[in-house]
Amino acid sequence: MSSITFIGLGIMGLPMARNLTQAGHDVTGVVRSERGRARATDAGLQVTEDAASAVRDADVVITMLPDTPDVRATVTTIAPALREGSLLIDMSTIDPVATRDIRATALPDSVAMLDAPVSGGEAGAVDGVLSIMVGGADADVERARPLFEAMGKTIVHVGPLGSGQVVKAANQLIVAGNIQMVAEAVVFLRAQGADLESALEVIGGGLAGSTVLQRKRTAFLDGAFAPGFRLALHAKDLGIVQSSAAESGLSLPLTAAVTQLVRALVARGDGDLDHSALLKLAGELNGQDSTSER
Amino acid sequence: MSSITFIGLGIMGLPMARNLTQAGHDVTGVVRSERGRARATDAGLQVTEDAASAVRDADVVITMLPDTPDVRATVTTIAPALREGSLLIDMSTIDPVATRDIRATALPDSVAMLDAPVSGGEAGAVDGVLSIMVGGADADVERARPLFEAMGKTIVHVGPLGSGQVVKAANQLIVAGNIQMVAEAVVFLRAQGADLESALEVIGGGLAGSTVLQRKRTAFLDGAFAPGFRLALHAKDLGIVQSSAAESGLSLPLTAAVTQLVRALVARGDGDLDHSALLKLAGELNGQDSTSER
Repeated sequence: MSSITFIGLGIMGLPMARNLTQAGHDVTGVVRSERGRARATDAGLQVTEDAASAVRDADVVITMLPDTPDVRATVTTIAPALREGSLLIDMSTIDPVATRDIRATALPDSVAMLDAPVSGGEAGAVDGVLSIMVGGADADVERARPLFEAMGKTIVHVGPLGSGQVVKAANQLIVAGNIQMVAEAVVFLRAQGADLESALEVIGGGLAGSTVLQRKRTAFLDGAFAPGFRLALHAKDLGIVQSSAAESGLSLPLTAAVTQLVRALVARGDGDLDHSALLKLAGELNGQDSTSER
Repeated sequence: MSSITFIGLGIMGLPMARNLTQAGHDVTGVVRSERGRARATDAGLQVTEDAASAVRDADVVITMLPDTPDVRATVTTIAPALREGSLLIDMSTIDPVATRDIRATALPDSVAMLDAPVSGGEAGAVDGVLSIMVGGADADVERARPLFEAMGKTIVHVGPLGSGQVVKAANQLIVAGNIQMVAEAVVFLRAQGADLESALEVIGGGLAGSTVLQRKRTAFLDGAFAPGFRLALHAKDLGIVQSSAAESGLSLPLTAAVTQLVRALVARGDGDLDHSALLKLAGELNGQDSTSER
């Protein structure tokens, strides 16, 4: 069993750390607030305020932080205290270019690193059934596998360091596009007077079927856009796609277009709605009110 | 059991007519060529060259033709010969506006009409498991249901006349977009050096999963673009989306963009490739050769 320091006990991080504890690992959570401390203790974690001292004895340090600058700042802070031979696993969703840069510039060679972003949302984190996309060296992935298995159901090693972030980014661009395509289909079906519910039923059964269409069906039919996965977060993830695509000089026309639409929703103040609210904008562009359906 | 005249015994129409015959219906196929006559006879159909005389005694006339002008010309030709109380079912994929116009201008009031385009391809037609999207009046749909059940597995009444075409069009715009999103993800994954096969595995298991990703997996991995569903046909279907969206004054940004990409492939001479060859163009736009993968 491993001695783990977990940094970033948010909506995702806290249940992930709890699942590690319940699998028998010795987990210390880094928390600053009174309230955070109470929650972490309830989850069975040991707690500390000081990240640098907490990592000193850890075999494995896991970060689950909001964005690229948080990961960079945290790793820079803890790096001098990390034990020789320890393993840093960044499970945040950040820029793959930054991942490789953090490894190269902020981390001593004696510390190994994996990137392992997840999908599956809060429910997946609570139930320990996340999909985990892992980038890094074979031996490090095998070393971390028991920990991943405590947090996730599908654990896939997708390439060298940074590849987890690349695959997560690819995942997020497909999700955004698939939502927007269904949204445009809904706008079209409504304008043409077809029965939306039976239309989506038959469409979902054929080549146009998707997990988006299954899971977001109610949102599309009723215009109920409670998150779920917030547009603000999706905008952040599409920003990662955009910057790493730009770094490679890539032209991705539909990805670029849907990124603009997601940003427009956030700019308009809809960032706290579920990403299925791409339908809200698609509808409004056509004089349709999607939120008052039925 | 119905007496049926079937007009349009192509790749789809012939097996559909055969399934009607095997369900015990009395089916006459309209064929002109020697070769077509032999194939129709082999399929158990009666054959005739003259559509107008064939429809005179038919309870139901089914058309399964390439495009809008074919349906308009055929209906105009046969309309004077159609029996009072007979039912015309157009199973072609055509413009919904044209469907309603043909009903209004070319067909006597004493003849009922349904539009019932299908999805599921040649395999679905042969196996009698097509999805059939039906537009028209309730009573007519119920009258036709036994025939649909001989040809399809999922039969959904999606609204008034023309609605079947509307839903088919919506289906085709989603399919094109979902293919293009996977294509852009593949281009991104390749450029960033992730392992494509394991990446698509983990992506397919999450919210980005789709029937496109399942069924076209080999095409995406190996660049094997044999049809399948030809880009030329998809371009035709997206033209239907575009013209009926324009008729309603709709703005559908991703649909518009993917329509241009499909057209570009056809214009370049790739119209006979499967629609998964959207990856071919997405790759070439980025200096990647998708057809020589592995």
